[in-house]
Amino acid sequence: MSGWSYAKAGVDLNLHRELHRIALDSVARVNSVVSGKLGMRCGGIGSYSGWVTVNGLDISLHVDGVGTKSLIASALGKYKVIGWDAVVINVNDVVCSGVQPIALVDYIAMNYPNDVAFKEILEGIEEAAITNELLMLGGETAILADVIKGIDVVCVVLGVKKYYNGFKALRGDVVVGLYSNGIHANGYSLVRKVIESTVGYEAVINGVKISDELLKPVTNYAPLILESLSKNLISSAAHISGGAFKKVRRILDDGLNIVIETPKPPKVFELLMDLGNISTYEMYNVFNMGIGMVVTLPNDNLCEFKSAAKRYGIETAELGYVVEGEGKVILNTYYGDVIEF
Amino acid sequence: MSGWSYAKAGVDLNLHRELHRIALDSVARVNSVVSGKLGMRCGGIGSYSGWVTVNGLDISLHVDGVGTKSLIASALGKYKVIGWDAVVINVNDVVCSGVQPIALVDYIAMNYPNDVAFKEILEGIEEAAITNELLMLGGETAILADVIKGIDVVCVVLGVKKYYNGFKALRGDVVVGLYSNGIHANGYSLVRKVIESTVGYEAVINGVKISDELLKPVTNYAPLILESLSKNLISSAAHISGGAFKKVRRILDDGLNIVIETPKPPKVFELLMDLGNISTYEMYNVFNMGIGMVVTLPNDNLCEFKSAAKRYGIETAELGYVVEGEGKVILNTYYGDVIEF
Repeated sequence: MSGWSYAKAGVDLNLHRELHRIALDSVARVNSVVSGKLGMRCGGIGSYSGWVTVNGLDISLHVDGVGTKSLIASALGKYKVIGWDAVVINVNDVVCSGVQPIALVDYIAMNYPNDVAFKEILEGIEEAAITNELLMLGGETAILADVIKGIDVVCVVLGVKKYYNGFKALRGDVVVGLYSNGIHANGYSLVRKVIESTVGYEAVINGVKISDELLKPVTNYAPLILESLSKNLISSAAHISGGAFKKVRRILDDGLNIVIETPKPPKVFELLMDLGNISTYEMYNVFNMGIGMVVTLPNDNLCEFKSAAKRYGIETAELGYVVEGEGKVILNTYYGDVIEF
Repeated sequence: MSGWSYAKAGVDLNLHRELHRIALDSVARVNSVVSGKLGMRCGGIGSYSGWVTVNGLDISLHVDGVGTKSLIASALGKYKVIGWDAVVINVNDVVCSGVQPIALVDYIAMNYPNDVAFKEILEGIEEAAITNELLMLGGETAILADVIKGIDVVCVVLGVKKYYNGFKALRGDVVVGLYSNGIHANGYSLVRKVIESTVGYEAVINGVKISDELLKPVTNYAPLILESLSKNLISSAAHISGGAFKKVRRILDDGLNIVIETPKPPKVFELLMDLGNISTYEMYNVFNMGIGMVVTLPNDNLCEFKSAAKRYGIETAELGYVVEGEGKVILNTYYGDVIEF
């Protein structure tokens, strides 16, 4: 059997990257005109969160949605998790840019006014907003019969840039992985194709109850990362979301490599790999493989960081080092392959 | 033939209002916990734009999308307008809360990486951003095969509250309507059902070329409204978008009525009304009927406001007055019916 890939499941990351390039060109054109005209400063575009300076305050804005995980939520009739996730994927991103998240708006598009789903989604948003101390400034609910087949849940987080350290790995740093709570909210187009074409959502395999695994909430790393930035414990953080381990490149300057050894991934990833006959490269290119956030820090701070993580209930693993190199992320995978991003 | 209605076309505004209520409850719960904890002030929730006070700055955040107008864009292969609209519907909203828009992020969801559509949408966003002097702080492009059938285009606008007048009609004010450029971006679920079940998009009827009419861009009222607020010319402004003339209630205090006589609507609305056998009430409940923005102002400012509008190429019509009453918007429609919202 020829294996499943993200492209075969409908998401071609190369085409996606091409769209991203088009968008960044557009952003650059607009900002050169507008910032010239108004004398306004902005930055961080293309990193985890862009910002604009208003009255000396760097205000950041970030948008992300839960994607096709919502289809699993619909199939299983459990919606709260996608509300939670929609908030948490945003705050996990912005803290990697040193941004203190402050408020949010949500955008929920549905094919009909499904009040049961809507209430559960909002419960999840509420819980994540309160956990992260975010105000809610409003939102939009769009009923888009014929555009949407299920539900699309998107959040936008407003924040203020608070930390100006913490964005690039430094030579000699230790690389620490923060464990994920399963698949989180990326790669679901591939997950669905694999599960639907094989065992189905109701299956229990090697002790893994598929339906439970696929709806686990995204781990909220934001409070730990913010605390670590405030105490100057870490030099950088990379949220492993869409694009998976390629995201680690964001924290890497030219002249350095990050060399990591990835731990044994949780059962659900091995199951997907086997069921879908997915290549090792594709797995680490699409999924977090058990590591939802990567941070770099001086060895001297390791103990304090690990005990902070423990306090937040987040398990850690030392993955490797930042060394001299050519700007590469080198993964020594659990399966013996070496992958360079 | 029994007539078409928005509910029959899949959008039940009563159910939609119920979702809105659920969302506002959620917002209230979160904000009471979070603002108590952090001592942060926020407001404007449920009006055109909510805001949060950070360092003495009232920062506003607003989200809106073009809805099912994107299906017409897809059917006719013309996408630029939905990019433009996605920005303009947001700025038209926030200026009604006295907010100076500053920056945006976009969210574009597609069923496959359609680079042609994507480029055109971004051209529209660029043009509207430059026109309104908005920086672009990033965005998200989601490929959601199986969730999205076409394209969903959403924008989020960040702004700063600049004007604290300008939100309620005052007794004795004149009510002025600002002409729209056709249907703008609301009611498209109904538009599509009517056109698809009758003449089709290629028809030309009474000199109205349907395909052109349905893709006219939303009028950009923001610069005019901001200038009028800065000069203290107007007491309030109401963007006539989703919910149409019901939106006028937002600028109305208890103890006052707004009594207006609506002008003859442009041909496209009469055509839809005839083809779909739609009731007068439903037309004014769903569509702008030729008036995209309503402002109230003292009679003394009328000349100056009208000449400002002219400068921006926006035509105006005096529609009526603000009088003592019971908090009602009373429309004397062109068709002789009297509608109360």
